[in-house]
Amino acid sequence: MIISLDAMGGDHAPAVTVHGAVWAARDFGLTVQLVGNPDAIAAELKKHDTTGLDVPIVPASEIIEMDDHPSQAVKTKKDASMNVAVRQVKTGKSQAFVTAGNSGGALAAALFGLGRIRGIKRPALSTIFPTQSEYGFAFMLDVGANTDVKPEYLVQFGMMGSLYAEKVLGIANPRVGIVSTGEEEGKGSMLVIEAATKMKTAPYNFIGNVEGKDITTGLADVIVTDGFTGNVIIKFAEGLSKMLMSAIESEIRARPLAMVGGLLAKPAFRGVKAKLDYREFGGGALLGVDGVTIITHGRSDAYTIRNAIRAARDAVEKDILGAIKAGLT
Amino acid sequence: MIISLDAMGGDHAPAVTVHGAVWAARDFGLTVQLVGNPDAIAAELKKHDTTGLDVPIVPASEIIEMDDHPSQAVKTKKDASMNVAVRQVKTGKSQAFVTAGNSGGALAAALFGLGRIRGIKRPALSTIFPTQSEYGFAFMLDVGANTDVKPEYLVQFGMMGSLYAEKVLGIANPRVGIVSTGEEEGKGSMLVIEAATKMKTAPYNFIGNVEGKDITTGLADVIVTDGFTGNVIIKFAEGLSKMLMSAIESEIRARPLAMVGGLLAKPAFRGVKAKLDYREFGGGALLGVDGVTIITHGRSDAYTIRNAIRAARDAVEKDILGAIKAGLT
Repeated sequence: MIISLDAMGGDHAPAVTVHGAVWAARDFGLTVQLVGNPDAIAAELKKHDTTGLDVPIVPASEIIEMDDHPSQAVKTKKDASMNVAVRQVKTGKSQAFVTAGNSGGALAAALFGLGRIRGIKRPALSTIFPTQSEYGFAFMLDVGANTDVKPEYLVQFGMMGSLYAEKVLGIANPRVGIVSTGEEEGKGSMLVIEAATKMKTAPYNFIGNVEGKDITTGLADVIVTDGFTGNVIIKFAEGLSKMLMSAIESEIRARPLAMVGGLLAKPAFRGVKAKLDYREFGGGALLGVDGVTIITHGRSDAYTIRNAIRAARDAVEKDILGAIKAGLT
Repeated sequence: MIISLDAMGGDHAPAVTVHGAVWAARDFGLTVQLVGNPDAIAAELKKHDTTGLDVPIVPASEIIEMDDHPSQAVKTKKDASMNVAVRQVKTGKSQAFVTAGNSGGALAAALFGLGRIRGIKRPALSTIFPTQSEYGFAFMLDVGANTDVKPEYLVQFGMMGSLYAEKVLGIANPRVGIVSTGEEEGKGSMLVIEAATKMKTAPYNFIGNVEGKDITTGLADVIVTDGFTGNVIIKFAEGLSKMLMSAIESEIRARPLAMVGGLLAKPAFRGVKAKLDYREFGGGALLGVDGVTIITHGRSDAYTIRNAIRAARDAVEKDILGAIKAGLT
C-alpha cells in the first residue's frame, strides 16, 4: 500500500512529517511518499535510519501556508504539496492522502482534486474522541467541513459515520445519535428535528438525540452534528480540559501536603492524559470525497503523523470508499 | 425587597427550596415568598429556625411537573406555583421570580406572564461559568431559550449580556464575543457572520469571534451564541468534566502509591471542585422578559437556591430591567 503524505504541511513540517512517515513505514510496512521540497525532505530523512524502508520523495515546489486563504491558495498554487499529494491519489499512484497542513486548504484540495463520491451531497470531517463507552471512544462528524447544512446532509453523515465506525473502527452495529438540546424526540432546532425524523428510517442504527452531557458518556458510537456545532464542541473540549488540568495543578501547588500527593499521583495523571490523548487517533477522515483523506492537526507531532498514516491505511484496507458507495445504493 | 420563589419547583422541592429561602432571607435580609402548597411548605418551614425572618407562604394549588409539556402545562395549570409566582411579580407584589422547576415551563410562564420588554425580539437564557479570566468567570447567552435564531436576536443578546455583565456582575466595559469556528472575521456559519457584522456597530465592546477553545480562556466576558449551541456547550461541559474527574479517580485507584498521593491531594481536588462549582452562581437570568427571572437547575440544592435568590436580588438592585430598556433607545 502506498500513502501520500503532505510533507510540508503542519506547524513543524517537514521535521515531524518526515519523522512520522519513517515511523509509520517501519511500524506498518507501508510505502509513504513524502510530497514536497526535495532538499528539505532529504535533509530531514538523513536524520533517520531508513534502511529497508520505502519513503520516496515526490517533488512539489509550492506550499499552502497556514495563513493562506484556503480555496484561493489551492487554486493558484497548482504545484503545492497538498495538490500534488492529492493528484497522486487521483491518478492511482497512491491510495490515500494525509496532511497536517492548513485544514481549510486540505478540505479544498481534496474536494477539488478528488471530487465527491457520486450521490454524496457534502463531505464531512470526522474525529475520534475519548468517551466512557465500552470502546473508549466515539466517532463524531461533521467537525468543521460544513458550517451551514441541510437535514439531508446530516442523514448522510450518519450513514458515512456508521460505516466508518463499523468497517474501520470495528464497532458492531454502531449506535448513531444526533446532537440536540434534549433527549426526547422533537427537541432541538428545526434542522435537527427534521434530520432526526429522516434518520429514523435510514438504514443504520439510529438511537435518537444525544444531549451535550451524553456525548462523553458513550450513549452513541457515532455522533452526528453540523460542522459549526461539531467544531465548537471539539475545540471547547480542548479548552475545558486545559482549564481543568491547570486548575488541579494550581490547587495542588497551593498546598504543601497536596504537592507531595500530587508527585505521588503523577503517573496517574500521565495515565489520564494518555487515555484522553487525541494524538492516539491521528486526526480525522474526510468522508464523502472520492479518495481516502486524513486531515490532522497543524500542531501534530511525529507520533500523530504516524497514527494519521495508520488511520489512512485502515481506511484503505477496510475499503471505506467501497462501503460508502454501496451504502448509497 | 421581595422575591417570589417557586417553592414546588425542582427535583428536591419543597425541602431544598424552603431551606434555600430561609438561608437567603437570613443572609441577605430579604423577604422571600414561598409559593406553592401551604401544608407542604409549612411542614418544611418547621424544620428551620425562622425567628426574625420574613418567609411568607403564598398559596398555589397546582404544580408544573418535570415531565409536563412546558407551554401546555403553563396554559392549563393556571394556579401552578410558577404561574402564581410570576403573577406576584406582574402585579407588583414582588420584584423577582426564582424557580428550579421544569425549565421549559419556567420560560413559558415568564414569557406569557411577564411578556417581553418592548423592543426585545427574543428573551435569552443566560449562565455564568468559570473561565481563566481575571474575574474567574464569563457570562454566556443564549443557553437554551431559542434553538432557532436570527442575526438580530444575537445582536440584542450581546446588548443584554453586556449590560448584565457590567451592572450586575461588576465587569467594567465587558468584552463581548460571538461563538464561531475561527477567530478571524468572516469565519463561521452564515448566521454568525451576519450577526458579527452587525455587532461591530452595536453600542457595546464587541471583540469578534470566540472559538470553542477560547471560551474558557477568558478572551471574552460575554459570550453570545444561539440557544442550540449554548445549550450543547454547557451540557457538554458538565459531561466532559465528569469524564475527566472519573478518569483521574480510576487512574489513581489503579496505582497504590498514587492512591496515597490522591488522598494527600484530596483538599486540592475539593478546591478545584469549589472553584468550578456552578452552584456558586445560582442559575441563570432570563433576560428580555419584563420582570427579573432567575431559572436554576432542577437538581439544585439549598445552597444553589440561596444563590439564585441572591442573583435575583442583585438584578433587582442594579435595575437590569431599566438598563435594558435604556439600552434599546
